[in-house]
Amino acid sequence: MPVGLPLPKRDELSPVAGLDLFSVSAGIRKSGRRDLLLMRLVEGSAVAGVFTQNAFCAAPVQVCRGHLASGGPIRALLINTGCANAGTGAAGLEDARTSCAWVAEVCGLHPSQVLPFSTGVILERLPMERLRAGIELASCSGPSDWLDAAHSIMTTDTQPKAISRRVRLSTGQITITGISKGAGMIRPNMATMLGFVATDARLSREDLHGLLLSSVDDSFNAITVDGDTSTNDSLIGIATGASGLDVSRGTADWETFAVEWLAVCQDLAQAIVRDGEGATKFMTIDVVGATSRVEARQVAYAVAHSPLVKTAFFASDPNLGRILAAIGYSGVEGLDVSKVSVELNGVLVAERGGRATSYREEDGQSVMKEEEITVRIALGRGASQARVWTCDLSHDYVSINADYRS
Amino acid sequence: MPVGLPLPKRDELSPVAGLDLFSVSAGIRKSGRRDLLLMRLVEGSAVAGVFTQNAFCAAPVQVCRGHLASGGPIRALLINTGCANAGTGAAGLEDARTSCAWVAEVCGLHPSQVLPFSTGVILERLPMERLRAGIELASCSGPSDWLDAAHSIMTTDTQPKAISRRVRLSTGQITITGISKGAGMIRPNMATMLGFVATDARLSREDLHGLLLSSVDDSFNAITVDGDTSTNDSLIGIATGASGLDVSRGTADWETFAVEWLAVCQDLAQAIVRDGEGATKFMTIDVVGATSRVEARQVAYAVAHSPLVKTAFFASDPNLGRILAAIGYSGVEGLDVSKVSVELNGVLVAERGGRATSYREEDGQSVMKEEEITVRIALGRGASQARVWTCDLSHDYVSINADYRS
Repeated sequence: MPVGLPLPKRDELSPVAGLDLFSVSAGIRKSGRRDLLLMRLVEGSAVAGVFTQNAFCAAPVQVCRGHLASGGPIRALLINTGCANAGTGAAGLEDARTSCAWVAEVCGLHPSQVLPFSTGVILERLPMERLRAGIELASCSGPSDWLDAAHSIMTTDTQPKAISRRVRLSTGQITITGISKGAGMIRPNMATMLGFVATDARLSREDLHGLLLSSVDDSFNAITVDGDTSTNDSLIGIATGASGLDVSRGTADWETFAVEWLAVCQDLAQAIVRDGEGATKFMTIDVVGATSRVEARQVAYAVAHSPLVKTAFFASDPNLGRILAAIGYSGVEGLDVSKVSVELNGVLVAERGGRATSYREEDGQSVMKEEEITVRIALGRGASQARVWTCDLSHDYVSINADYRS
Repeated sequence: MPVGLPLPKRDELSPVAGLDLFSVSAGIRKSGRRDLLLMRLVEGSAVAGVFTQNAFCAAPVQVCRGHLASGGPIRALLINTGCANAGTGAAGLEDARTSCAWVAEVCGLHPSQVLPFSTGVILERLPMERLRAGIELASCSGPSDWLDAAHSIMTTDTQPKAISRRVRLSTGQITITGISKGAGMIRPNMATMLGFVATDARLSREDLHGLLLSSVDDSFNAITVDGDTSTNDSLIGIATGASGLDVSRGTADWETFAVEWLAVCQDLAQAIVRDGEGATKFMTIDVVGATSRVEARQVAYAVAHSPLVKTAFFASDPNLGRILAAIGYSGVEGLDVSKVSVELNGVLVAERGGRATSYREEDGQSVMKEEEITVRIALGRGASQARVWTCDLSHDYVSINADYRS
């Protein structure tokens, strides 16, 4: 069961003018579920992307980078689940290119106008015949809505992740709608596996790319489930411009738009953690008083990745010395532990390098029972801070990942 | 059940002349089990130690460092389990000092001649009354043997860890006997929680310290269970000299002795992983072809710490793309994945950045079913290498750590 994550409601997900969705069941891995999504964009759409920093990045990620850099303009996106097409070498690259050519064929485009995305098992080839049949089926299907689209990119996700905002600008109203997926192998580094955020506002590709880079840092790059950076992480921003309303940098509405865009990204990123594999708790790790943002993140991730901290949260056990241990080994040079304090949902647990004198086990116990917990770590070294979202480590995490391919 | 770790046999653990053991049940945390160990050393013994690099290092670690640096000569060691005396601030430091004073009192020593060690729950104070009673009980008990000693330092360990070697030198025969403990919060950084290796050979404190530093790197510093570096890690070397045989650096027997000493350290370190919390598999991660040892270790630890890799081993599922993903995000600058290959117990799984053409799923399946698996990763970048030992991530790991304090 995801933590504090309501199911998206079909009628609350606004369509994005200029963007059509076609989601079908292609039987890539299992039959009878939606596993292929085709997005078609109106002429004039701007598309930007940020991708995994994993050296073993997947074939589709390599093709996306190439098409965004020198191909385009992008008019279609193809997303399959069930197979990641990663660790597949030259043959996998060829498969990804072939899938773009097939989409181009049915849509009347050049292959370089298509972006391919895959998610699922690594080290296995795409089932190309089923993929081709799926593309043909999608091309002659009626349009799907965003909820169907969110369903069709899921892997171990227990529920679809989608959010929509209607934004009032000085010149009229625009829409931002996004979907994301991912529950395991989640420790994005520049983006997450997979996120698509689209708007009918008009902005240039450069502005869209800049916005994506700045918003990813405080959304998808601030989450972790298991510390495993995926080979396929991709976050794509789409601006169809179909509303006719311009929000480019320098316009009166740029700031309003950027704030709403970040909010959508944060909700989608948090949704991934709330539905993290086996998650029963949602934790916000706030580190303040660091000498730099990098240092603050380093401490936050050490705590967020510690299996001992995560299992203590799973057990609702205030075994909070484990948090101190993680801060201690996070690698902060010359950390003066006598200046460190730790609070959980406002309960002061540790101060001056030891247990807070005011701390009572009952208070710790009662905080640990809550489903959403904010751990605030003050380092007492400087003025920088960082926030990271994560979940606990439960039996279900082990079950899900031990049985993933079966 | 530990992996490939036979129970130490009482009659195979040789006493170390010049060192007496007294192990009792002090009821520190639970009653009815041995939880306090007093070691007394003959006059003239050399003692050296290496300790955790965790900034939140425990009070006893701080006291040990002080007594080794400016106190001594060390004549007694006190070890308790059930409480780590870490994250306990100034009061915890005072408790550690007081326990040294009590040992000094019953043994007729100065407090600075005593080293204190604690292991167990962090952020809780030592139960000083029970500790004092335990020290008094130990001081008037008959001597214990090494198997009792190994029992009395256990926490979540499922079995005692002890090893003994009789070493023939050019001048006669000496003994090296050691014990270790630890099953969780295991990712030692300079030493592990806790190891004690003793010999009746004679060598200077400087030589002993040098030997400890060189052997720890290929033994205790090459293991990980969960990536959590403990606050209390301590490895202590003791040379009583009671055999009268000198093995100092420069003597004919130095090399022989150093090799045997390393072997004892490696066996004790591996024992910790074989009995790692919830372990069902023992993995050796060999990384070769790196540009430096640091780089090789970085890759080995990324693989060894990946929860996805660890759960795949638990499930005996050859979902081996997860190993590529971990290599990919390990942070090696400019890694050319087309030069990377991965073998499991001699089965080539990946080469040239993708699945090996010779690889068959049945071979992967059959290797993954084995209890001991060597993962060999060739980076194709240079001539450096590293080896790390680890275990899998099972349901029992979660159970043990969710229930640890209950």
